[in-house]
Amino acid sequence: MTEPFDAVSVIRTKRDGGRIPDAEIDWVIDAYTRGVVADEQMSALAMAILLNGMEPDELTRWTAAMIASGERLDLSPVARPTTDKHSTGGVGDKITLPLAPLVAACGAAVPQLSGRGLGHTGGTLDKLESIPGWRASLSNAEFIAQLNSVGAVICAAGDGLAPADKKLYALRDVTGTVEAIPLIASSIMSKKIAEGAAALVLDVKVGTGAFMRTLSDARKLAETMVALGTAAGTHTVALLTDMNTPLGLAVGNALEVTESVQVLAGGGPADVVELTVALAKEMLAGVGITDVDPAAVLADGRAMDVWRAMIAAQGGDPDAALPQAAEKHVLTAPISGVLTRLDAYAVGVAAWRRGAGRARKEDQVSAGAGVLLQAKPGDRVTAGQPLLELHADQPERFERALQALDGGFEIGSEPVEATPLVLDRVTA
Amino acid sequence: MTEPFDAVSVIRTKRDGGRIPDAEIDWVIDAYTRGVVADEQMSALAMAILLNGMEPDELTRWTAAMIASGERLDLSPVARPTTDKHSTGGVGDKITLPLAPLVAACGAAVPQLSGRGLGHTGGTLDKLESIPGWRASLSNAEFIAQLNSVGAVICAAGDGLAPADKKLYALRDVTGTVEAIPLIASSIMSKKIAEGAAALVLDVKVGTGAFMRTLSDARKLAETMVALGTAAGTHTVALLTDMNTPLGLAVGNALEVTESVQVLAGGGPADVVELTVALAKEMLAGVGITDVDPAAVLADGRAMDVWRAMIAAQGGDPDAALPQAAEKHVLTAPISGVLTRLDAYAVGVAAWRRGAGRARKEDQVSAGAGVLLQAKPGDRVTAGQPLLELHADQPERFERALQALDGGFEIGSEPVEATPLVLDRVTA
Repeated sequence: MTEPFDAVSVIRTKRDGGRIPDAEIDWVIDAYTRGVVADEQMSALAMAILLNGMEPDELTRWTAAMIASGERLDLSPVARPTTDKHSTGGVGDKITLPLAPLVAACGAAVPQLSGRGLGHTGGTLDKLESIPGWRASLSNAEFIAQLNSVGAVICAAGDGLAPADKKLYALRDVTGTVEAIPLIASSIMSKKIAEGAAALVLDVKVGTGAFMRTLSDARKLAETMVALGTAAGTHTVALLTDMNTPLGLAVGNALEVTESVQVLAGGGPADVVELTVALAKEMLAGVGITDVDPAAVLADGRAMDVWRAMIAAQGGDPDAALPQAAEKHVLTAPISGVLTRLDAYAVGVAAWRRGAGRARKEDQVSAGAGVLLQAKPGDRVTAGQPLLELHADQPERFERALQALDGGFEIGSEPVEATPLVLDRVTA
Repeated sequence: MTEPFDAVSVIRTKRDGGRIPDAEIDWVIDAYTRGVVADEQMSALAMAILLNGMEPDELTRWTAAMIASGERLDLSPVARPTTDKHSTGGVGDKITLPLAPLVAACGAAVPQLSGRGLGHTGGTLDKLESIPGWRASLSNAEFIAQLNSVGAVICAAGDGLAPADKKLYALRDVTGTVEAIPLIASSIMSKKIAEGAAALVLDVKVGTGAFMRTLSDARKLAETMVALGTAAGTHTVALLTDMNTPLGLAVGNALEVTESVQVLAGGGPADVVELTVALAKEMLAGVGITDVDPAAVLADGRAMDVWRAMIAAQGGDPDAALPQAAEKHVLTAPISGVLTRLDAYAVGVAAWRRGAGRARKEDQVSAGAGVLLQAKPGDRVTAGQPLLELHADQPERFERALQALDGGFEIGSEPVEATPLVLDRVTA
């Protein structure tokens, strides 16, 4: 027995509502990564954390221990100031695609390490992989070189960042301990802090299509993450944004790339443009760049130039035609009136069930599958008019998608008030 | 996927404070026994049960599912009414030894399946194994035959009773989920109900040397177990008894056998006699035998006759000399006065550290090691008079035993009021 602590006593401390001492936090994360603390012990601890919570400085230490379980990227060879964004995930949330090149075009460097999608929200890498030739994996040297030459990289996170989180995340998934704000916050922030950007903007989604269904939960998560980033020396701000309705009109991998290119060309849906510009301003302000107007840089094509360079640097052809689904199915409005609700979760599940997302990590995704909205809440519709278009590789997939959409929209007689997209801003 | 339910959704129900539906309880216990529900899932569920509790009928179903995971003894070939006792464990608690033959001598059959000790409380089998030749393992046929011929059996529980409990108990031990009243109650009662006796008396210990430190916790455990027994059709009563002071004067395997034989010979410490008779009355009343006075049966040697037959039936020699420790160390009173406190936990740890008990399941125990008390709380002592005698196989073990006793007793100037041994009685 050369271990300085004992897993059972760490679990008991948290079970009984206590604060785990710093040295024991360091040990339990390290020992779990080494396999000395067993999965059944960590899952009991995770459940105790979920039910009894963690004190702020306890969570800061926990997050630091997760970071210390792996490597930390060294961005010092990057000449420009580095700034990053993380979204907690939403339906139609392709914002990273126009945002990274836009912020780079404004003078910062954007080192965006992304993941693949699981469940009803899509993954950024899945979307970009619909571009012929584009590759998600870069070496550290390629990553730094592209940040210096292009200014923006979106690529896969390596296995070296926060391996404790990787192990704990997989465990939480099978033990009913995902929905713990301290564990969600430390999981996200350990990876983001380990990435080493000077500034970080968090897009915390709220609503039916988001992980956080209520504003109060979303605010608590945002405050927790902002505190963790700030404690680690990363300039961190969060926006709370609406996810009751899908973002933009396109949901699905290639469909969202197409919409992102429209935004980079100066067009695209107003909500996507609005959120892209709002997040760009925060990312730039985080590194002291306040004399550039991202809306203008988006409108005049400078962001598009960086996009093309960024895609090409990772082997992609920015001019290539994107995969299209073989089968389409139009859902029409059953009555005339005003579309009062178009539920993000229902649309996300419909797209997912048609192949745009994964049920399990090892599943393949379809590049062409998804949903194209023909109307958004607030729009007037007439009976028989297309509401949305389902895209799939196989016709038999429509039935389950239509089930998901059943009850997912409402047509009323009264005009509805528009809800703001950015609901609040959380700072340290 | 042929499993009807999913472990994560069962965990979530309990995590969120809900009641697990009956069919899901049946499934999760069965699937855990089969290895389909993983240890890390069951430990998260155990922690959620510990923190969120279980409703009475939910726990009844949980216990029934544990019983259904294995065999249930069929005591129908036993001619006499069957009645059993379970103690939650205390220091110097050798009561089963005189009790089982006493109750048999009064006309009932006692099918006592026991365990080995772990930690500071001793195990009944460890005590009996200090008798040369005595063996703990019996076949089912031998068990039934001895119940019919002798009327009392104390032997090892087979692996077939409640295997789900065996697995869950080992898991709880390493995951900080031992101290959950629903889980303690269902663990004890699943095994006791599976043993099949018609009546059961629970001796729930309260105090420093017991698992339950407070009367309110002990009462809650007792009420929970009585309800489970009653729901399963077993006549169940509990006594709450004091465990702030060791029972009797002997703590240790052979030392406790010797004291038990003194009690069976009509002598022995008053507290051991009192509790043995009180429990015997309850065990007999549980099967409707109320016309025999166990105190008389103990005093006149009839219980001793059954004891000798019971030991001999399992290969033991009731007349053999018992092992004695090679080394003795006397602890004397530092001042004169009244012994006001002699802590059961301190004495239990002192005996355990000298080899009478185990730190781990695979440890060997010493038959001769233990503690002999020379005074009990309430007794007047003079400076230099022996307070207790430590027995060990090796002299170097005394130092740690003395550490355990440091602060474990108090000598005051005022006489102390005697605390009752039986604190309360809990019935359905």
